[in-house]
Amino acid sequence: MDPEAFLDLANQVTKLNPFPYFDIAHCAITCFYVREDIGAGSQAFSRKHPLATWLSSMFAIFAGALLANFLLGEPVLGAVKNNNQLLVATAVWYVVFYSPFDIGYKVVKFLPFKVVLSAMKEVYRCKKVHDGITHAAKLFPNSYLIMVVVGTVKGNGGGFVKIVERLFRGVWTPTAMEIMGPSFPTKASIAAAIIFVLDKKTDIISAPHALVYFGITIFFVYFKLSSLLLGIHDPFVPFENLFCAVFLGGVWDSLQRAVSGGKAAPGDPVRPDAKPEAAKKKD
Amino acid sequence: MDPEAFLDLANQVTKLNPFPYFDIAHCAITCFYVREDIGAGSQAFSRKHPLATWLSSMFAIFAGALLANFLLGEPVLGAVKNNNQLLVATAVWYVVFYSPFDIGYKVVKFLPFKVVLSAMKEVYRCKKVHDGITHAAKLFPNSYLIMVVVGTVKGNGGGFVKIVERLFRGVWTPTAMEIMGPSFPTKASIAAAIIFVLDKKTDIISAPHALVYFGITIFFVYFKLSSLLLGIHDPFVPFENLFCAVFLGGVWDSLQRAVSGGKAAPGDPVRPDAKPEAAKKKD
Amino acid sequence: MDPEAFLDLANQVTKLNPFPYFDIAHCAITCFYVREDIGAGSQAFSRKHPLATWLSSMFAIFAGALLANFLLGEPVLGAVKNNNQLLVATAVWYVVFYSPFDIGYKVVKFLPFKVVLSAMKEVYRCKKVHDGITHAAKLFPNSYLIMVVVGTVKGNGGGFVKIVERLFRGVWTPTAMEIMGPSFPTKASIAAAIIFVLDKKTDIISAPHALVYFGITIFFVYFKLSSLLLGIHDPFVPFENLFCAVFLGGVWDSLQRAVSGGKAAPGDPVRPDAKPEAAKKKD
Repeated sequence: MDPEAFLDLANQVTKLNPFPYFDIAHCAITCFYVREDIGAGSQAFSRKHPLATWLSSMFAIFAGALLANFLLGEPVLGAVKNNNQLLVATAVWYVVFYSPFDIGYKVVKFLPFKVVLSAMKEVYRCKKVHDGITHAAKLFPNSYLIMVVVGTVKGNGGGFVKIVERLFRGVWTPTAMEIMGPSFPTKASIAAAIIFVLDKKTDIISAPHALVYFGITIFFVYFKLSSLLLGIHDPFVPFENLFCAVFLGGVWDSLQRAVSGGKAAPGDPVRPDAKPEAAKKKD
Repeated sequence: MDPEAFLDLANQVTKLNPFPYFDIAHCAITCFYVREDIGAGSQAFSRKHPLATWLSSMFAIFAGALLANFLLGEPVLGAVKNNNQLLVATAVWYVVFYSPFDIGYKVVKFLPFKVVLSAMKEVYRCKKVHDGITHAAKLFPNSYLIMVVVGTVKGNGGGFVKIVERLFRGVWTPTAMEIMGPSFPTKASIAAAIIFVLDKKTDIISAPHALVYFGITIFFVYFKLSSLLLGIHDPFVPFENLFCAVFLGGVWDSLQRAVSGGKAAPGDPVRPDAKPEAAKKKD
Repeated sequence: MDPEAFLDLANQVTKLNPFPYFDIAHCAITCFYVREDIGAGSQAFSRKHPLATWLSSMFAIFAGALLANFLLGEPVLGAVKNNNQLLVATAVWYVVFYSPFDIGYKVVKFLPFKVVLSAMKEVYRCKKVHDGITHAAKLFPNSYLIMVVVGTVKGNGGGFVKIVERLFRGVWTPTAMEIMGPSFPTKASIAAAIIFVLDKKTDIISAPHALVYFGITIFFVYFKLSSLLLGIHDPFVPFENLFCAVFLGGVWDSLQRAVSGGKAAPGDPVRPDAKPEAAKKKD
């Protein structure tokens, strides 16, 4: 592929206007997962509690902006000030929950559509992470952590508010905290946020900005498709295990066990499902 | 009644100064319901945990302003910056919980007093909904949803913070979310907020502003008295059921059941206790 | 001791720069208590959920500033904008949770070190209460309650966010609300906040400001050492019981029992473990 044409394409991705098509994809996938989360009685629930269904769907859809506004001290409700976005979100919510013969839900669930919508949502996610960092950098130009946190919550807001969103529907699951076992979108958003911050604030990354952005978009889409089509859910796991073993006690715990002659407590060994702090890895 | 005198009366209601009499009524009814909510051991609880009793009462009394400030990105504590309001609220709290021979609680519980205080609280509620919308309209002049949300939380703040207010007293009831089954004050506040927004932002309502305001005040007071004296708790239910049946799946579900020959899941029929989204109805 | 030298010393304490030594002490004690709070499996937990461990530690360390920012409508994340403080906190967290042979944790647990670190944390606590009040007084110069609340949450932020901090680790303890049974640091922070507000806003306290500040610092350190070394946990209890008996129903309840001939409900007597509202006492 011609490098110049490639850079041109990257530039176009950078300037993408997400409204309305990417907004529709984002709303459709989010409402779909809210409905999946309600479980077996989702249709009966949506008939009985339309207000709770609508509010929790809107909360999940605008979660990133709501959380980022809250964390940056801006009006929380500012996230829903755009009437067009709100109308699109409400329309998609209506189609997913109340369409005749449940056709809306079935369409989103149909794999080819789901793959396309998910890919669009990932493109949008990259834009959100980037916008979040740009916004945080204006308010706190020297605080790298704040930029990464805001980028991450903008990228995967729905994950972080899940327990509150469920509470809106009367379900309380305190053990389902996102940070107890971060999902792949959270880890990917953290990684992307760190790369964007490095690109913006340091000279470590020499590639043009559009290329970095385009690369992260492709990374998001690629792993989403892997997850949907091939079942590869978390490519970060081997790196995490290595990092945990070296820095977060693994080596020392082994040494201690060796010294104390295997009398260590049963909880001590490094677990294969360890969830290390992906953020610190690259700092 | 002379129309001019009527308009004069309406104008006076619009310019009503709520401090201190309406504040006292609001505090008395709110503290009364907090005490009812604690239940049988409320007197023993208030002796054992005065700080928790005081904080949860204040939280319930100022809930509307606290929530509205939070949602609009203003200082949350700004809601309690008025020392006089705070002193009145604390005095009423003291009388309801700690008066000798429990005389304060018994007075508020005595039906004639309760009716008068409740009616005054409803007049105040109307003012709060109106002030909330005016305030939100200054910050977000084009966002109808934000105005309605702020008006509603100002009107029935206590209902929305109930689960947090209970948490202040060590009680956690995640299924008692207001939006899962909105109470009549919430629905009435939503309806009033929508009418105020229509009056303010469109030309649909041609009546003078004072008349609209007075009409909503009468509506609030009338249904509160109906509820207290006649036991009519929710005049919105028939409209909700109709709206649900037409727009939120009722008709389609019946059609689907007819087509599939009665093999639909048991959760599918529209329930008589359906809680539709009162807001959307009138948008 | 020479009064002038004493005033000089007091002045120096007032101008103390807490970074980095007092920050280290604060972080070490806070991380230590977070680890104690996780309980028996804390080492295994820290290996399995490093991100949750880190976030809940940072949340506990910066709790005062986070809460105060939230309550005053400032950017919540502004509390962690100082990269140096954040690096120190992360380093201390690493040492307490992941040091080889658990040496960091054992050092903090070793009584002499713990006493020194706790004393330093109390000196820092006094500074935080004072800074909180100064900051709140700039925003709300006439609201005494807001000043006291902000001073208190800055002084004992960790206590107030404990249930959320635990939630970050997947543990939900709704009955462990700080205000249900305020701990000694909370009560001491309330008392200190009230004295600072009186000193700042009224002429009741005629002593020089530096002396008041120094006196409160000594009070904090003295009672912390009493608690650690002598096991005296709450010197406020007798005053609280007296206040409760006189003002919060104790006398009236006794009178009522006497009148009604001992037929009062079993929950009525004033409990010895009553927790009165220390704030109101001195207003």
